[in-house]
Amino acid sequence: MGVLLGIGDDAAVLDPSSMRGNLVWTIDEQVERTHFRRDLAGWIDIGWRSFMSAASDLAAMGAEPWCALSALSLPADFEDEDLDALARGQHAAALRLGTAIVGGNLTRGEVVTVTTTLLGTAERPVLRDAARPGDDIWIAGRLGLAAAGLFALDRGLHDERLDGVKEAWLRPWARIGEGRHAAKFAHALVDVSDGLAQDVGHVGEASGVRALFDENLLRDHAHRTGLESIAELLVLDPLELMLTGGEDYALIAASDVPLEGFWRAGTFVEGQGVALKRATGRERELFELGYDHFRARLEP
Amino acid sequence: MGVLLGIGDDAAVLDPSSMRGNLVWTIDEQVERTHFRRDLAGWIDIGWRSFMSAASDLAAMGAEPWCALSALSLPADFEDEDLDALARGQHAAALRLGTAIVGGNLTRGEVVTVTTTLLGTAERPVLRDAARPGDDIWIAGRLGLAAAGLFALDRGLHDERLDGVKEAWLRPWARIGEGRHAAKFAHALVDVSDGLAQDVGHVGEASGVRALFDENLLRDHAHRTGLESIAELLVLDPLELMLTGGEDYALIAASDVPLEGFWRAGTFVEGQGVALKRATGRERELFELGYDHFRARLEP
Repeated sequence: MGVLLGIGDDAAVLDPSSMRGNLVWTIDEQVERTHFRRDLAGWIDIGWRSFMSAASDLAAMGAEPWCALSALSLPADFEDEDLDALARGQHAAALRLGTAIVGGNLTRGEVVTVTTTLLGTAERPVLRDAARPGDDIWIAGRLGLAAAGLFALDRGLHDERLDGVKEAWLRPWARIGEGRHAAKFAHALVDVSDGLAQDVGHVGEASGVRALFDENLLRDHAHRTGLESIAELLVLDPLELMLTGGEDYALIAASDVPLEGFWRAGTFVEGQGVALKRATGRERELFELGYDHFRARLEP
Repeated sequence: MGVLLGIGDDAAVLDPSSMRGNLVWTIDEQVERTHFRRDLAGWIDIGWRSFMSAASDLAAMGAEPWCALSALSLPADFEDEDLDALARGQHAAALRLGTAIVGGNLTRGEVVTVTTTLLGTAERPVLRDAARPGDDIWIAGRLGLAAAGLFALDRGLHDERLDGVKEAWLRPWARIGEGRHAAKFAHALVDVSDGLAQDVGHVGEASGVRALFDENLLRDHAHRTGLESIAELLVLDPLELMLTGGEDYALIAASDVPLEGFWRAGTFVEGQGVALKRATGRERELFELGYDHFRARLEP
């Protein structure tokens, strides 16, 4: 692993000669009442999803995780057993991705924050600025399920048919393997954290292309993943869930060849903006859609 | 610098072939009402000291900063001009240390948190576990001034004689040069962030030695730096300020040869614990002293 010194000194020490390619480096902070509420998730879930959220940024570069540091701020009344559960969730997620947390920082704060910084490696990191008109929009992972799960958790709905979508929100995972595969072929790559429409917009803007989702392809996906019937149960629009729901940590790639483990959701074309091509052939602009963390919708 | 990609994509990309030695990696989080209060410091100060606090961990390994990421959580009513000042403070501190912030994360939260992760390089990182009996205790930087400054700020004291100590708390700096020099000779190295007595205890514990401060040497330092007269003005004990005050970000080294830029404060001896050798020759144990962030003394 090349970790010469882990937790216990002022800093971790790594041996760069053990790594190949470029270093890819990210930081992500998950904040109580912005990203999670303690009445909706266990601390082990919060640890897991915080780690996966950060790791998804590496997946979105086509990188492989190397190692991680974690910074926690915790209120005075935070129980030791809760800290233990939080750390177990973080470590389980790290283990799941074949990486490790090699150091960190612990401090007092009025709300819980879980910050993760991850170093990864990539021979050829994939940016977001080289999508071309004619590239297809490829997705790795499922869409809309985490948003449906959060809705069900937030309303306190108890129905075993909702267990799967709750799990999707509570225990997402970063698409590291798919990202590494995409890195061989894709012109652009990002992850879905704020919502499909919003995140594909980052590719469109950086690359100077227009993203056009195909309603039929999205509806196929909703049918295949069970999102269609869940949305019916919750009286929600499956397309809305897919286009605006974040936190599935799916990947969006721009590629002119099919990508293993990805499904096709539309096409990049000349122009700008993000739109949905209806089954009727008409295009609906999706400019304003997307989950904005700054709306802090998790406040009770 | 080896920074291939900075702010704007999912992660930063670095070229490790541009670096020498080992990677040294740290994360530090500064939390409103634990580490700072907005009525005591400007946002530019808060940005500066947050960055320096993290960089001090690299100094404490004998490392040189390479580059940094920053994660901010900010309340909904946080003004753009305050964010601008905060960022200017961070960038000024980075510039002062010859490094740069190459990416980050911005999110909503009820209290301000400023988290900094720094990568540095060191040919030979200095740990805390190899101090030997007979090594002297060497200090780089001043002690007690930041604690006096925080006291003056907290009480709203206005006297131009206090400007220097207020500045010590508001604008500390990481002792990178001294740390790199110490790395050539020192057996152990840490920084003072929680308080001299507490932080030297980390060396003592890891190395299995006893730290014995010399009251005469500490009083000499207090006299030389002006802490003596400031303490008199504030009716505080200069020794107490030096032994328990953190946030000067001084360095403590264990070395059997003098270190350039360091002053001698005592000796490591056989045994355990931390003590002050009084001018009378008697030893006073300092077991319980130190600034505990978990006491959250900054709450108004």
